[in-house]
Amino acid sequence: MRMWGAALLMPLAAALSAAQAPEPAATGAARIAQAALRDPSSYALVESLTTEVGQRLAGTAADARAVEWAKAKLGAMGFDDVHTESFPLTAWIRGAESAEVVAPAPQKLALTALGGSVATDADGIEAEIALFRTYAELLAASQGALAGKIAVVTQRMVRVQHGGGYGAANPIRRAGPSEAAKRGAVAYLLRSLGTDDHRLPHTGALSYAEGAPRIPAAALSNPDADQLERLAARGPVRVRLLLAPRTQENAQSWNVVAEAKGRARPEEIVLIGAHLDSWDLGTGAIDDGAGVAIVATVGKLIASLPQRPQRTVRIVLFGAEEMDRSGPAYGAAHEGEARRIVLASEADFGARRVYAVLLPTAVAGSDFAKALAATLAPLGAFVDPRAPLGGGDDIHQLQKAGVPVAYLGQNGLDYFDIHHTADDTLDKIDARELAQATAVWAAFTYLAAESDVDFRAK
Amino acid sequence: MRMWGAALLMPLAAALSAAQAPEPAATGAARIAQAALRDPSSYALVESLTTEVGQRLAGTAADARAVEWAKAKLGAMGFDDVHTESFPLTAWIRGAESAEVVAPAPQKLALTALGGSVATDADGIEAEIALFRTYAELLAASQGALAGKIAVVTQRMVRVQHGGGYGAANPIRRAGPSEAAKRGAVAYLLRSLGTDDHRLPHTGALSYAEGAPRIPAAALSNPDADQLERLAARGPVRVRLLLAPRTQENAQSWNVVAEAKGRARPEEIVLIGAHLDSWDLGTGAIDDGAGVAIVATVGKLIASLPQRPQRTVRIVLFGAEEMDRSGPAYGAAHEGEARRIVLASEADFGARRVYAVLLPTAVAGSDFAKALAATLAPLGAFVDPRAPLGGGDDIHQLQKAGVPVAYLGQNGLDYFDIHHTADDTLDKIDARELAQATAVWAAFTYLAAESDVDFRAK
Repeated sequence: MRMWGAALLMPLAAALSAAQAPEPAATGAARIAQAALRDPSSYALVESLTTEVGQRLAGTAADARAVEWAKAKLGAMGFDDVHTESFPLTAWIRGAESAEVVAPAPQKLALTALGGSVATDADGIEAEIALFRTYAELLAASQGALAGKIAVVTQRMVRVQHGGGYGAANPIRRAGPSEAAKRGAVAYLLRSLGTDDHRLPHTGALSYAEGAPRIPAAALSNPDADQLERLAARGPVRVRLLLAPRTQENAQSWNVVAEAKGRARPEEIVLIGAHLDSWDLGTGAIDDGAGVAIVATVGKLIASLPQRPQRTVRIVLFGAEEMDRSGPAYGAAHEGEARRIVLASEADFGARRVYAVLLPTAVAGSDFAKALAATLAPLGAFVDPRAPLGGGDDIHQLQKAGVPVAYLGQNGLDYFDIHHTADDTLDKIDARELAQATAVWAAFTYLAAESDVDFRAK
Repeated sequence: MRMWGAALLMPLAAALSAAQAPEPAATGAARIAQAALRDPSSYALVESLTTEVGQRLAGTAADARAVEWAKAKLGAMGFDDVHTESFPLTAWIRGAESAEVVAPAPQKLALTALGGSVATDADGIEAEIALFRTYAELLAASQGALAGKIAVVTQRMVRVQHGGGYGAANPIRRAGPSEAAKRGAVAYLLRSLGTDDHRLPHTGALSYAEGAPRIPAAALSNPDADQLERLAARGPVRVRLLLAPRTQENAQSWNVVAEAKGRARPEEIVLIGAHLDSWDLGTGAIDDGAGVAIVATVGKLIASLPQRPQRTVRIVLFGAEEMDRSGPAYGAAHEGEARRIVLASEADFGARRVYAVLLPTAVAGSDFAKALAATLAPLGAFVDPRAPLGGGDDIHQLQKAGVPVAYLGQNGLDYFDIHHTADDTLDKIDARELAQATAVWAAFTYLAAESDVDFRAK
C-alpha cells in the first residue's frame, strides 16, 4: 500500500519540485528523446538530401551543392552560429570501368574502382589472374610471384551486428593493392567488403604504400568473386580490366559547423558529428545521410529548447570522411580547443536503431552512466560497459589530441549489404528506426551537455 | 488390431506381389523422386552452365556455346537420341546504356534497355519527363499529350507467391512503349517489373505495335523509379537517355532435344522442357538454368531406369524463350505430332521448391490425380484442383495445337527480385530446394509416362 501510494503521488511531487528547483537532467533527456521520436525531421532531412543533392563525392560540384544544402537547412534550425570551414584536397573522380573474363568462358564482371585507384592504360590491361582465397595467402606469396598477373583476393568479410567484420577485413582493400604490387602484380581485384550477394560492388578508399608501384585496383561484387573462384578452380583464367578514374588537384571541401551555446558553461563543448560527403555510386542515404539527419535533428531540438543545457552543443558535418580528409583537417584546425571539447562522437553507421552506448572509461559505472542507462532503457538501448574503440573516423584526430569519445552502436547487421554501393538509397531507411536512433542521440547529447562530469581519464 | 496387423504385413505383401506383377506406377514414381532428392546432378548442371557458359543471349556466340554444352551434357546421360533443331531469328544485342537526371538535381539513373528496343541517337535524347504512377493514367492521356516528352510509368508490380503479379503488370513493359509513342513520347521508361529494391534494373522484351513509332524503351531500377517520383513531385525533371543496342538479322538458335523411348507406347510423348537461352545481364541461373538442370536430370533418371515407363519422355531445351521465338518455332515444326504429345510442361520459374501441380481438367479428380497427390505428399507438394493458365511460354504454341499442359508451381515469392537482372547468378540457388523441385518433376513425369490416361478434354 505504501508503494502504491508513493507511486500515485510521484507526478504531483515531481511537478511541485519542478516549480522550485532546476529540472533533473534525466527529465530533460527523456523529454527531448520523446520529442525526437515524434519529430519527422530526421527522415525529412535524409529524404531531402538524397533527392535534391544525391551523391556528393568530396571535392566535386555535388559536394558544393551539399554544403549549400546543409547551410540552408541548419540556418533555419535556430542555431546561434552556422558556418563552414574549408580545407584543400585532391578530388578523385570515377570514370569508365569494366572488366570481363576473356578465357576460358567470356563473360562480364561487375566491379568498381577503389577510391584513389590509378587508371589502367586507355585500352585496359589483360592478364591471367592469380587468385587467393585469403589475404594471408597473398601476403605469403614471394616477391615476383605475381609478376604480370592480376592479383585477386576473394576472402569474404564477416557479418557482425556491430560491424567489426569490416575492420577485420579492411587491410584487404586498404593495403592489398600495394602488397600485390610489391609481389609484381599489374592490377588488383578484391571481393567487395560487403555482406550481400548482389551484382553491386562496394567501393572504398585504398592507401598506396610508399615505394610500391601504384597499380589499378577494383572491387568485385560477391557473385563475381564467387564466379572467379569457380573458374579458377577449373584452370587458368584471363581477365581484361579497364578503369579510367581521374584526379583533380587543388579541389576543396568544407566542414559545416553549427552551435547551440550552453546556458552556463558555453566554453565547454559537446561535439557531435556526421559526414556530409558520400561515395558516388548511390545517394549516400545510410552513409551518411542518416547520420547528418540524426545530428542535425538533435542540434535543432537542443537549439530550440526553452532552457539550453549548460554546455555548448556543436554539430559538425564533415566534408570528406570517405577521402580521410575532413577529420584530420578539423583536428588540425581545432587542436587549440581540444581541451574545451569535453566529449565527441560521430554518427556514421546507418539508419537503424541504436542498441548500445559506449562511454569513455572515466565515467564507467558513474552516476552519469546510470542516468544515461535509465534514460535509454525505455528507448530499447543500454550502456555497454566496454570502452569504445573510437568515436568515428572524423573524430580520430580529436581523440589523439585528448578529446574523450563516445560511441553509439546501431544495428549494423545489414549495413554492409549496402555500404559504399549503388544500393545506398533512401528506400533502405525505415523512418521509425531512424527516429529511435535520433532519440538516443538526443538523450545522450542532452545529458552530456547538461552534466558537469569530466569525461577525461584521470 | 486388424488395422495394425495389416499395416505390419503390408511390406511383405508388397514385396511378394512385386515379384509376380508389374510394379505399381506410384512405387516407381516414389523411387525416382527419392533418387532425385539424392542426386547432385541438378545443382551440378546449373553450376556448370552458369560458370562455363554464363549468359547466353539467343542468337549470339554465347548461345551457340550453350547449345554445345547441352549436347555434350545430354549426350552423356543415356538418352536414345539427342539432336538439335535450328530456327532463324533476329538477334538483339545490348550496347552502351546510361541515363541521368539533368535538372533539377543532376544524378545518374540505373536502367537497362528492354529487349527489342531501338537505339537512341548516338548522342542520346534529352527531354522533360511525363511521369505516371499507374499505367492506366498513361493510357488515359490523350493523343499528343506526351509530345516531345520521355514517358515514365512507375507502377510497381505486386509480389505474389505464384508470380501472378508479373502477368498483371506485363503490358506496362510489353505494350507501354507503343502506347507512349502513340501519344507523342520520344522515349519510354518504366519501373522494372521486379519486386526488389536494388539498383539492378530488370530487362525483358517489348512488343512494338504496328503503326506506332518505335521509340527507345528502358526499365529503371526500383530505387531510381522512386527517385523520379520524388523529383517529379517537386517540379519539372529533365532526363538524358542513351541506349545503343543493335540487331543482327539472319542469326539462328537451336532447340536441343533428347528422348528416352517408352517401353510400351513409344509413339506417345510426355514432353518436358526448359529454356537454354537467358538474358545477358546475369548468368541465367534461376532463369532458366535451374529449369534446364531440372528437366535434364529428370530425363537422365528416366533414361537410366532398368525398366522405362510406357510412354516416351522427351526433353526440349528451348533456344529463344526470352525472344518469344523458340516456342513458336517448335510448335510449327511439330504441329504434325501434336496428337502424339500426350502432355507438355515447361520448368521456367526458378530453383525453389515445387509446392503444387496443376493438371489438365480432363484428369481432375481422377485416379491419376490421386496417385500423383499421394506421391507428392511426402515431398511437400499437393495437386492444386485448378486448371493451369498455361504450361510455360514455349509450350503455348503446342497448347494451341491441342496438346494438354500441366503446370508445376514453384515458390516464386522472391523470383521477381532476381528475374531478368544482373543478380540472376548461381549463389541465388539452394541445392536442396532445387533437388526437391527435381524430385517433384521426376515423380510427375514418371507417372504421366507410365500411365495410360488421356489428358485431353473429352
